[in-house]
Amino acid sequence: MQNEIRKGYILDRWVIMAVERASRPTDFHIERVKVKAKKACPFCPGNESMTPPATLVYLLKDGEILKKKDSNSTRHKGWQVRCFPNLYPALRPSLRETEYLETEFHLRRGAFGFHEIVVESPSHGEHPGMARLDQLRLAFEAQLDLLKKFYSDPNIKYVQIFRNHGRECGASLSHAHTQIMALPLIPHLIRNELKSAKNYFRDHHKCVFCNIIDRERESPRLIFESERFIVFAPWASIYPFEFWILPKRHGSSPLGIHDSEKEDFVRTLRVSLGGLAGLLNDPPYNYGFHIAPKTSEEYDKVYHWHLEVYPKLAIWAGFELSTEMYINVASPEMAAESLRKNVQIEADTLRE
Amino acid sequence: MQNEIRKGYILDRWVIMAVERASRPTDFHIERVKVKAKKACPFCPGNESMTPPATLVYLLKDGEILKKKDSNSTRHKGWQVRCFPNLYPALRPSLRETEYLETEFHLRRGAFGFHEIVVESPSHGEHPGMARLDQLRLAFEAQLDLLKKFYSDPNIKYVQIFRNHGRECGASLSHAHTQIMALPLIPHLIRNELKSAKNYFRDHHKCVFCNIIDRERESPRLIFESERFIVFAPWASIYPFEFWILPKRHGSSPLGIHDSEKEDFVRTLRVSLGGLAGLLNDPPYNYGFHIAPKTSEEYDKVYHWHLEVYPKLAIWAGFELSTEMYINVASPEMAAESLRKNVQIEADTLRE
Repeated sequence: MQNEIRKGYILDRWVIMAVERASRPTDFHIERVKVKAKKACPFCPGNESMTPPATLVYLLKDGEILKKKDSNSTRHKGWQVRCFPNLYPALRPSLRETEYLETEFHLRRGAFGFHEIVVESPSHGEHPGMARLDQLRLAFEAQLDLLKKFYSDPNIKYVQIFRNHGRECGASLSHAHTQIMALPLIPHLIRNELKSAKNYFRDHHKCVFCNIIDRERESPRLIFESERFIVFAPWASIYPFEFWILPKRHGSSPLGIHDSEKEDFVRTLRVSLGGLAGLLNDPPYNYGFHIAPKTSEEYDKVYHWHLEVYPKLAIWAGFELSTEMYINVASPEMAAESLRKNVQIEADTLRE
Repeated sequence: MQNEIRKGYILDRWVIMAVERASRPTDFHIERVKVKAKKACPFCPGNESMTPPATLVYLLKDGEILKKKDSNSTRHKGWQVRCFPNLYPALRPSLRETEYLETEFHLRRGAFGFHEIVVESPSHGEHPGMARLDQLRLAFEAQLDLLKKFYSDPNIKYVQIFRNHGRECGASLSHAHTQIMALPLIPHLIRNELKSAKNYFRDHHKCVFCNIIDRERESPRLIFESERFIVFAPWASIYPFEFWILPKRHGSSPLGIHDSEKEDFVRTLRVSLGGLAGLLNDPPYNYGFHIAPKTSEEYDKVYHWHLEVYPKLAIWAGFELSTEMYINVASPEMAAESLRKNVQIEADTLRE
């Protein structure tokens, strides 16, 4: 394969596939940054007082899951999942969201919003690539609970659920957790996706992501397919070994999915991230949910929720940062071929 | 100062200034990655045969600078600046630039273009923050020579000149060098800048950057001002200690500048990067020139060339990568205040 330039499916995003130096997955094994062990992990059971009071805990009692909140005087023990405000939040509900235009060049607004942590498991190292499925399901339910709660605030326009895995990806604590930021505006990337998806629907009377699924299912970029989800390396991947997880049934938000879909989703997430860890020696990665904004009626038909996973195996340098064009040295076809095997191994192991 | 959300001057780019944890410059001293010494540096004098033949060398002979090329049989020695194709280029002139639309979702084109290295000095460690001014001037002249040459190719639409300083910023070799990529298309970020600048000119009959200079000169974000250039931390900085260098005289490209401006530019670059190195213990950084595309007649009035410098002191994590919104923990006002002192020290030292 010669180097080539590819365009993203719907974003105006161009990637130089610099694949002439043939590379194999082993070329991407990176030396991980060692995280120094802290005296005490603030996310571990027993250390609840090191964090703000929980806004939501899942407690297991007599085989049932109870949902509770901490108060200032009570920090629940024995939790399975624990959600609380980030100790150093980027956004805070107490800040006014008013916009000030100081001069024509100086627009500012209060950093209103919510910034919370979801501790996914009481076990420090129970990351989704190897977690128990039941536990992963609970963590997903908690994410959905928060998503629903934040979207009920009339001043919240978008909710971003994301995960930083590894120091190189911005995780300052290694205990398994995700973060949720509820924003007073729709972010740039999501606005661009929505705009393109809307235009596509207008012209083709079909969801663009549904059509992409149909195409990529038959392509060399397919990684894994379950009953209800599909995993593939996107055509214009900007990261080596980037992959997306999409539900086959159209829907603009994970709030609308059934129990069987939830179960399938966490299983698909588990085997995909497990396959990635197996192939590349547990690389650092970020993932983010892409969902419709709350004003979703106009987006219900046109937008299709999904998860994008970005392993961090390369550095964005002066070229990428100056141009918003990208250089990727791993073709998605090569990435998919290697991941496919490893994800299948995970799926087979899980089934046994 | 409370956290707030700011919008970029002309880009639709939003930054959460998460400055509530008061931080000082010393909080940003990072532990640098040690680069293992290679047996031989391919960019050092004597090792010319480790790189492709030079497309341009500056030779000093009898006090005059001669411009030469290598051939396959001759590699010039005794050079002051040396330019040659990247050994592992992302773009190559031999690739066709034809665009293929394989399916509606799969657009690809050949990775046509040029990808060259400018070795800025025969001295391995003569980086611009501490370089001799004469040497820095030569390196800048060579960048301009290549810029001019690439823009004379009818298939080249944009030329990106950039610098990666430090392993963390993607520099795989530590010898002082910049890179130039000549592209068959105008990159996304530059297209967005051009569009906004054009709209602003239409509405205000003046260059938006000229107006920004007028505003920021009087602001707490000013870092340094020379006779012909201005340095400031932009209002919606997306990186801690980000700064821009702009010429006061309007011009869409550095190809049109006078000798006195060239001299002032390299001096301003020298003291700015020197001040950054002094303040933050020589941090890794990327910089990129922003210039008008070749089809510049329509842009001559509306676009204003400049340089943007991005120190790498923070990690973009799941939030930034999923949203194209940014979190910056250092306000540009704090950054400017600290940089101002250090840049002034550099300027004073240079004058003595």
